[in-house]
Amino acid sequence: MQTLSVELGNRTYPIYIGSGLIGQAELLAPFVRAGRAAVVTNTTVAPLYLERLAAGLDACGIELVRVVVPDGEAYKSWETLNTIYDRLLEARCDRDTTVLALGGGVIGDLAGFAAATYQRGISVVQVPTTLLAQVDSSVGGKTAINHPRGKNMIGAFHQPLAVLADVETLGTLPDRELRAGLAEVIKHGLIRDIGFFEWIEANIGRLLARSPAELIHAVRRSCEIKAEIVAKDERETGQRALLNLGHTFGHAIENVMGYGTWLHGEAVAAGMVMAADLSRRTGSLTEADVQRVAALIERTGLPVTARGISAARYIELMSVDKKAARGRIRFVLLERLGSAVVRGDVPQDALDATLAGAP
Amino acid sequence: MQTLSVELGNRTYPIYIGSGLIGQAELLAPFVRAGRAAVVTNTTVAPLYLERLAAGLDACGIELVRVVVPDGEAYKSWETLNTIYDRLLEARCDRDTTVLALGGGVIGDLAGFAAATYQRGISVVQVPTTLLAQVDSSVGGKTAINHPRGKNMIGAFHQPLAVLADVETLGTLPDRELRAGLAEVIKHGLIRDIGFFEWIEANIGRLLARSPAELIHAVRRSCEIKAEIVAKDERETGQRALLNLGHTFGHAIENVMGYGTWLHGEAVAAGMVMAADLSRRTGSLTEADVQRVAALIERTGLPVTARGISAARYIELMSVDKKAARGRIRFVLLERLGSAVVRGDVPQDALDATLAGAP
Repeated sequence: MQTLSVELGNRTYPIYIGSGLIGQAELLAPFVRAGRAAVVTNTTVAPLYLERLAAGLDACGIELVRVVVPDGEAYKSWETLNTIYDRLLEARCDRDTTVLALGGGVIGDLAGFAAATYQRGISVVQVPTTLLAQVDSSVGGKTAINHPRGKNMIGAFHQPLAVLADVETLGTLPDRELRAGLAEVIKHGLIRDIGFFEWIEANIGRLLARSPAELIHAVRRSCEIKAEIVAKDERETGQRALLNLGHTFGHAIENVMGYGTWLHGEAVAAGMVMAADLSRRTGSLTEADVQRVAALIERTGLPVTARGISAARYIELMSVDKKAARGRIRFVLLERLGSAVVRGDVPQDALDATLAGAP
Repeated sequence: MQTLSVELGNRTYPIYIGSGLIGQAELLAPFVRAGRAAVVTNTTVAPLYLERLAAGLDACGIELVRVVVPDGEAYKSWETLNTIYDRLLEARCDRDTTVLALGGGVIGDLAGFAAATYQRGISVVQVPTTLLAQVDSSVGGKTAINHPRGKNMIGAFHQPLAVLADVETLGTLPDRELRAGLAEVIKHGLIRDIGFFEWIEANIGRLLARSPAELIHAVRRSCEIKAEIVAKDERETGQRALLNLGHTFGHAIENVMGYGTWLHGEAVAAGMVMAADLSRRTGSLTEADVQRVAALIERTGLPVTARGISAARYIELMSVDKKAARGRIRFVLLERLGSAVVRGDVPQDALDATLAGAP
């Protein structure tokens, strides 16, 4: 097992990464008070891992309130959130209750936001079971639900007490979700570490084949990069925005396609190619760089483009996106492979050309 | 104008107290970025004070997005919260937007929680227009909505950037609400300052007659006491619970009577008499002390008892109350007038006698 730390003063927390961690209840037990925890998971993950988690905790004398919600981005909604509140209240969970978020990004966001707002905030431990959640969403304290007008519009920053990333759970992950998670792994290389990007290029075959050693390395390096950025800018007032490479375009794509039709990582993948293209048009990347990004994304089996969205629709959706400052759209661009910057002064013609998919 | 400070490190914020402050936009302007703010108010307060606020801000070049919701505790709900989100999204409010909460406790809680969760948290300035909100709910960062299973069950701690308490607004306050606000003023004396309690006893006539000088003193001393406690225990892990004197009983009363039928301050008033009675039964107050508390509450025109609630129903409601730790009910009691303590070991027979209204 490897242990990283997200340095946030008196709210510093550990990330445990390894294989078979879900059964090791002694890792979780220190974060549970009062002999009782509430697990929030979904109908896909529950049959696979819930009883393994429960058995371990039971052996430690910890009772588990079970909250199982439907699977899918469509359920990252107020309605599902309310079923979590109902269940916690019904079970008389009090402020000492720790929530365990067992599942992918949707569960982490939902359970995290429930914990952030139940009785004005209770503790949460993230137990991500998808690659996307392990390398990205479980770390950093962002929680949210979707709103009909936009993704993640309602939420809170609520740091977990700990993150437990068990790569064994990636064995049951559908291929498409594995690929979607790799989009965020590639992102971490692109924004911060050309060496890691090159390592991914060299190891993409092993990652797609789910080789545990390579998965552990990918999760670890991704979490290190994310933890370092989050520690410097917990509430995204500055450089944390760099983690949104591809996300401004990506959220617009998800919104048009309907949440859940495209996976988040797929939209981000196409969005990163668009961001690379826009970086080229504003003079920082070469055509060869853009091709290299697109080639890796293509080898990962991810989309490099989203068809059928007009430039006007992109602009409309991106300006309501929460990363828009005063109606002006800010983009995360690459000044070179391995280094990202936020730009608020992208020329309109460059943006138009990227949105139109011009050569 | 008087200025207090809530000392919370880099989130320290001022409380301005005075008469006619709402028209003094230069007090609010420093807390508004980007030339735009969103005001959340209700249909009762809007005709009285919204245009005065808007005119001042307009003169400072600040545009105001107006969100007007129905008046009443019944609207402290998810549905109303959602109309606030809708309006903010429709107006394309971004993360730089400051929310101004113009109204009583319900507006402060609703607008505060909307600000806490809109795009993972935006700024809020509290502009309380009721005595209850000025002496209590606008200070300290507690925000919440109600849930069918209990009051304030969903919420967040979200400190404002500033509080602006204009006692001129108390001139239009219905008499019943003025009295309800005085319940919390009395509470501050009871838990922390016998001298202030005695001052209230001596000045209750002037307070009920809305003498500005006495109202300013009552608001100021209440805010001082609350600010001091909040600064020591922002998230209610310890002594902040003392501010809940009368609230454990009070929430049960509000719940049975239906939110809004009894005003919060009325329920707290009866709850404080019950807490004083329980303090006598556990040996800390004298019978004369209890009579003195009840007499002041009665002179204020507030209820000293709530009829028709069985002991079993109280117990049921109080154990789901969020101040219950692991099913055991903790009470804020008075060790003497002017000093409160939290007790988790109240003998069942003493509690039963208080709940039964035994002599």
